[in-house]
Amino acid sequence: MDMVMSLLEKLNQRLSLATQNSRPEELYNPISYTLSMGGKRIRPMLVLMGCDIFGGDVDKAIDLAMGVEIFHNFTLLHDDIMDGAPVRRGKETVYKKWNSNIAILSGDTMFAIAYEYISHADPGVLPELLRTFTQTARQVCEGQQYDMNFETVSNVSIREYLEMIMLKTGVLIAASMKIGAIAAGAGITEQENIYSFGENLGIAFQLQDDLLDTFGETEKFGKEIGGDIIANKKTFLYVKSMEVANEEQQRALLDLYSKHPSDSTGKIREVREIFSSLNIEEITKKEISYFYSNALYFLDLLDVKEEKKTALRKMASELLDRDF
Amino acid sequence: MDMVMSLLEKLNQRLSLATQNSRPEELYNPISYTLSMGGKRIRPMLVLMGCDIFGGDVDKAIDLAMGVEIFHNFTLLHDDIMDGAPVRRGKETVYKKWNSNIAILSGDTMFAIAYEYISHADPGVLPELLRTFTQTARQVCEGQQYDMNFETVSNVSIREYLEMIMLKTGVLIAASMKIGAIAAGAGITEQENIYSFGENLGIAFQLQDDLLDTFGETEKFGKEIGGDIIANKKTFLYVKSMEVANEEQQRALLDLYSKHPSDSTGKIREVREIFSSLNIEEITKKEISYFYSNALYFLDLLDVKEEKKTALRKMASELLDRDF
Repeated sequence: MDMVMSLLEKLNQRLSLATQNSRPEELYNPISYTLSMGGKRIRPMLVLMGCDIFGGDVDKAIDLAMGVEIFHNFTLLHDDIMDGAPVRRGKETVYKKWNSNIAILSGDTMFAIAYEYISHADPGVLPELLRTFTQTARQVCEGQQYDMNFETVSNVSIREYLEMIMLKTGVLIAASMKIGAIAAGAGITEQENIYSFGENLGIAFQLQDDLLDTFGETEKFGKEIGGDIIANKKTFLYVKSMEVANEEQQRALLDLYSKHPSDSTGKIREVREIFSSLNIEEITKKEISYFYSNALYFLDLLDVKEEKKTALRKMASELLDRDF
Repeated sequence: MDMVMSLLEKLNQRLSLATQNSRPEELYNPISYTLSMGGKRIRPMLVLMGCDIFGGDVDKAIDLAMGVEIFHNFTLLHDDIMDGAPVRRGKETVYKKWNSNIAILSGDTMFAIAYEYISHADPGVLPELLRTFTQTARQVCEGQQYDMNFETVSNVSIREYLEMIMLKTGVLIAASMKIGAIAAGAGITEQENIYSFGENLGIAFQLQDDLLDTFGETEKFGKEIGGDIIANKKTFLYVKSMEVANEEQQRALLDLYSKHPSDSTGKIREVREIFSSLNIEEITKKEISYFYSNALYFLDLLDVKEEKKTALRKMASELLDRDF
């Protein structure tokens, strides 16, 4: 695992240099800007870990990790246009700093660059890697579309919500691990188990993100609390609340989620009060635990050394910051 | 060649069915709409011809042809957002009929689908195909960026203009033929020659498009004459005119190209008059002939049967509608 961490540093360097001298600079400056922004680099870490636990050559998987991270950043870049998000990781988003056209085209170019890195894989595993990567890319787009659909429908079910975050977040986390596994030459069953581990971990991770956005601490969460409420975003907390609320509470939530007050302090407090009265924090934690346990179940099925499983368990618990 | 034509019909059917039952329909309906719209299908035809002339299995190249055409249509979809173009092939563009967000995301999905088809290639040629396809995709994005840059600079040189259309149009025409050649197992030299043939043909094709947009006949051209002038687009005709015009003519052109009159009849007439006084129609035809001859030079270098060369020459002359 020390190996993985030192490779991540190398990856960060390579990411910030990847498009440094490419022309035209109007196209590539936003890409360098995006790739130098940092971020937790969770997905490339998972590619490297997926490769490592099956005894693969982690050094050779670094291009795959680059491809996955560049793809992820491309989706963020386009999502920010679609969501009208002005800030990401504390910095102006590309479409705000430049404009939408630049953001569209830089994103498209990043998608191509992502494939460039994926294509560096050993020819023997290339078809399988491409199948996984491309299917995942399509699913992430589908997830974003479902997310956008939710903005205009009033009744989203928990099933629909979970399917959406599975596509939008879960599959890429899962595919990252599977891509590492494929590169290491792991068999189909092992690939499926590590994928299921990642899928469940990814959903738990997104649910936790939903929870922290409303009930977290700014310092720990890294961004302002209440952003989802301000944006009237239909998170797990909202969808679950609408499911278990009485008519009066439903009306109150619908009313609060139809407004964009200039000062949102009161709105955030009122929504949190309704959520709390419905015990939503506990319900969400239980849901997170459910998917976390599922993830650990698939982890246990893996036919790898116990020390590798320990490393995966440690990563999963750190990712979810399991202090509750 | 009859084989190629019958395969193109099959390809049209497959294109319109490719995403018919995919969900969510908000994402896939615009894709089906785009892929059912028709178009000349020049690039997939070139993939199939590139494969055919080198004795490849044309039937197996159809997925590659699909990939190239879906990629091309993805670029049009995003270009239409960036250019604010309301109509394409006589129909509303996706971002007009739906909205920009849908157009961004449907385009992204088409890019992934394009790779899906390219990845169906024989594993033996897959790395080489991916290298060509991905490099081309990046170049097309770079060409679009240069084109957008031209909107805000006053002095574009002929060299810069030709480099832009080479990237934006030439490389995909060239890569289409090369992809077919790679699939057929052609050697490096043959790949390079067919690529150079396509590159020169592509530039000639774009220059002719510039010419017909201003001096063509609506019926033959398939769209209204003068569109480029109305949009103040810096085509070869404009760039060349600015190069050879005297100061008075330059001022007149700059003035005309800074306006958007509600009735553009007078503007189109005046621009055409300046172009004509500078003999631009003849100059452009000579430039087209230059690139056309270059294309034929590389065609002659090909180590294929004479009947295959004849088929390529026929295609090239039909593509350029060489009645001048």
